[in-house]
Amino acid sequence: MRAVDLIRKKRDSGEHTREEITYLVNGYTNGEIPDYQMAAWLMAVWLRGLSYAEIGALTEVMLHSGEVAVKKVDKHSTGGVGDKTSLILAPVVAAGGLAVPMISGRGLGHTGGTLDKLEAIPGFNTALTLADFRRVLRECGMSLIGQTVEIAPADKKIYALRDATSTVENIGLICASIMSKKLAEGIDALVLDVKTGSGAFMEKEEDAVRLAEIMVDTARRMGKKCVALLTDMDQPLGRMAGHANEVLESIEVLKGGGPADLRELSLELSAWMFYLGERSASVEEGWDLATEMIASGEALERFRECIRLQGGDARVIDDTSLLPTAKNRVEVASRRAGYLIRTHCRNLGIALAMLGGGREKKEDQIDHGVGLEFHKRIGDRVETGEKLVTIRYNSDEKLAEARELIGSGFSIGSEAPQARPLVRRVIGG
Amino acid sequence: MRAVDLIRKKRDSGEHTREEITYLVNGYTNGEIPDYQMAAWLMAVWLRGLSYAEIGALTEVMLHSGEVAVKKVDKHSTGGVGDKTSLILAPVVAAGGLAVPMISGRGLGHTGGTLDKLEAIPGFNTALTLADFRRVLRECGMSLIGQTVEIAPADKKIYALRDATSTVENIGLICASIMSKKLAEGIDALVLDVKTGSGAFMEKEEDAVRLAEIMVDTARRMGKKCVALLTDMDQPLGRMAGHANEVLESIEVLKGGGPADLRELSLELSAWMFYLGERSASVEEGWDLATEMIASGEALERFRECIRLQGGDARVIDDTSLLPTAKNRVEVASRRAGYLIRTHCRNLGIALAMLGGGREKKEDQIDHGVGLEFHKRIGDRVETGEKLVTIRYNSDEKLAEARELIGSGFSIGSEAPQARPLVRRVIGG
Repeated sequence: MRAVDLIRKKRDSGEHTREEITYLVNGYTNGEIPDYQMAAWLMAVWLRGLSYAEIGALTEVMLHSGEVAVKKVDKHSTGGVGDKTSLILAPVVAAGGLAVPMISGRGLGHTGGTLDKLEAIPGFNTALTLADFRRVLRECGMSLIGQTVEIAPADKKIYALRDATSTVENIGLICASIMSKKLAEGIDALVLDVKTGSGAFMEKEEDAVRLAEIMVDTARRMGKKCVALLTDMDQPLGRMAGHANEVLESIEVLKGGGPADLRELSLELSAWMFYLGERSASVEEGWDLATEMIASGEALERFRECIRLQGGDARVIDDTSLLPTAKNRVEVASRRAGYLIRTHCRNLGIALAMLGGGREKKEDQIDHGVGLEFHKRIGDRVETGEKLVTIRYNSDEKLAEARELIGSGFSIGSEAPQARPLVRRVIGG
Repeated sequence: MRAVDLIRKKRDSGEHTREEITYLVNGYTNGEIPDYQMAAWLMAVWLRGLSYAEIGALTEVMLHSGEVAVKKVDKHSTGGVGDKTSLILAPVVAAGGLAVPMISGRGLGHTGGTLDKLEAIPGFNTALTLADFRRVLRECGMSLIGQTVEIAPADKKIYALRDATSTVENIGLICASIMSKKLAEGIDALVLDVKTGSGAFMEKEEDAVRLAEIMVDTARRMGKKCVALLTDMDQPLGRMAGHANEVLESIEVLKGGGPADLRELSLELSAWMFYLGERSASVEEGWDLATEMIASGEALERFRECIRLQGGDARVIDDTSLLPTAKNRVEVASRRAGYLIRTHCRNLGIALAMLGGGREKKEDQIDHGVGLEFHKRIGDRVETGEKLVTIRYNSDEKLAEARELIGSGFSIGSEAPQARPLVRRVIGG
């Protein structure tokens, strides 16, 4: 790009792109474009004018030429099996310069909860006071806690009543419950991960789309930037389910490894958070920034710092053997050969809970060391007797039942199914 | 309102108003509405559903049932003669529970600047570092400083060039310059006071409307809530112009007195700030809250605290004689009888600057004690020889010229003109 061409473009009544305005303003500010060229451009602007889009771009580039108050962004997922993206994207986005004040929930039934996963880290405290939560946020750019008594008490009381009156599953009540908690921390933008498929709260895509649309609309009515990614939950996300297992896999991704699907979704959600939080000019640039935060190790250090500030044993970052592990291990093998065409994802989550790695009822205690490792993904070739899942468990009590559920959770067919994208749609993007 | 009627309304597929949802949620949360009524309402919701507007209202009421991160709101005025609303609304809005991080400017030509006015208070420091600015904001809910080197340096550099190349007066460049500074502090909402009339930067209403529309559009593109009030600047706002004079009049308003027009506009702008900052459910409620903050003395105390934290002599609140005053006083009287039909408001500002109470060039020093007091407003009956303006001045040098300009700044006619509203339009409301 050359200043002389951009001057001529405006002289001849052209409309600048955002990139052109960025080039001019930053070039002039850092001294690469001389006064006489900027003067000529200003005169061309005076005579030819600026469009609304040009004024918006000019404002944004000038505003970001100096220090800008840190924006707060958050993510919410409707939940599924193996969904540990919060543990990855929070440090990635914090390392990239935004603040991530995350008020999360606990798992119930077949889905896991972020707070339970974090508590697999010895000492990690998810019940900070609001004041401590804000202090941790200031110090390391991220903090993850549960709902406190100060946040949306109406929701807490109404939720308990919905539970006792079979009125939980209403899209409007679900939306208000989620959004009231998510917006209480005064965030600037929110990215929603709405799951659809056999392991999702909303199995049917049309229901998930409707929930996504209502949540995006509600956030925007409250003056927040918001998009929803409609993502696949027809099979577990990543290879690991279970609390210690998921922390371990998150650390792997933060170290640059981990399974491709988990890595991809974590980067995609981070990219949208960077974009909506105005840390990047596009989602693509946000993706690059997220990749860089992992490659440089900055995201990993941020996670270490957050664990330390919330009272956890940060040595788990370097030595994952400090995470709890169930003492027994058994494999579930395939009874036939072919291609994995479908998983009954919800049943895999229920089997995990049966073994103590989840809650059937709210009061249940969780065994953080119990977990499942999945060896095959939809579309993979499977031979008879080849292992599908490794189970880590402590108690034999419901093992037979859980193994049966897991075994019947995989459908093997003779032809490989068509590959489907992980992110099916972006709503409000 | 009764819960039983609201239950029946939802049972019969009615749509609730925001007030009805507020009544139900708050009533249930504080224990006035019993479980069995809320349970029946939830079941009616489950069966009949909620509209987008109902979901939005439910989210907002639940979110505000507990502690909510403090929202940051700001105001920007395009400037005029006697416009000291910032000194009033910042403490009012801070006292009402929002944070007001105000990055203001200096006066030039016929218009005054907020920073210059504050500096009429002995010791008041408007050149805080960004860190101190944020500390003062946290401690008293408001802080007013000038542009620092860290904020939008591109704007500073480009503005200087515009000044030297006669390209200041372009609506797009003006918008980008104002908005880039205003948005750098990460505010949630912005209220614009766009002046129109003989003392405004935009004399013609159509030009002011266009600037207002572009600024509102730009703020919204950046994800901020924003409205613009198009307000009258055909005559000075309030009775006082000049720096110490305007601080004095602002303190009068904060004490519950002051002239009606200044009081009205300050309350109106505060009301919109409360509404956009989600401290009130409507502009009307925002007005009530603003009125209460003045009546209770809380706004005055907030101003006192801010002066103290920014190094100023807070005793001026109780003893305005501590403000500087010019040593001489002279009156300008009317040469004929009739009704005041028009003022040449711009010339009144220029006369003030001539006497040292403003800047003709950027480098000029300001005499904070110089001021004008206006005794008549448009529509008032005036007798021959009755005083129109009291001038406070120190130097005789340009007195004759200034008196002449002031004298010719008032048009007296035989019939009272039609009264016009102070707030002409709300753009984006």
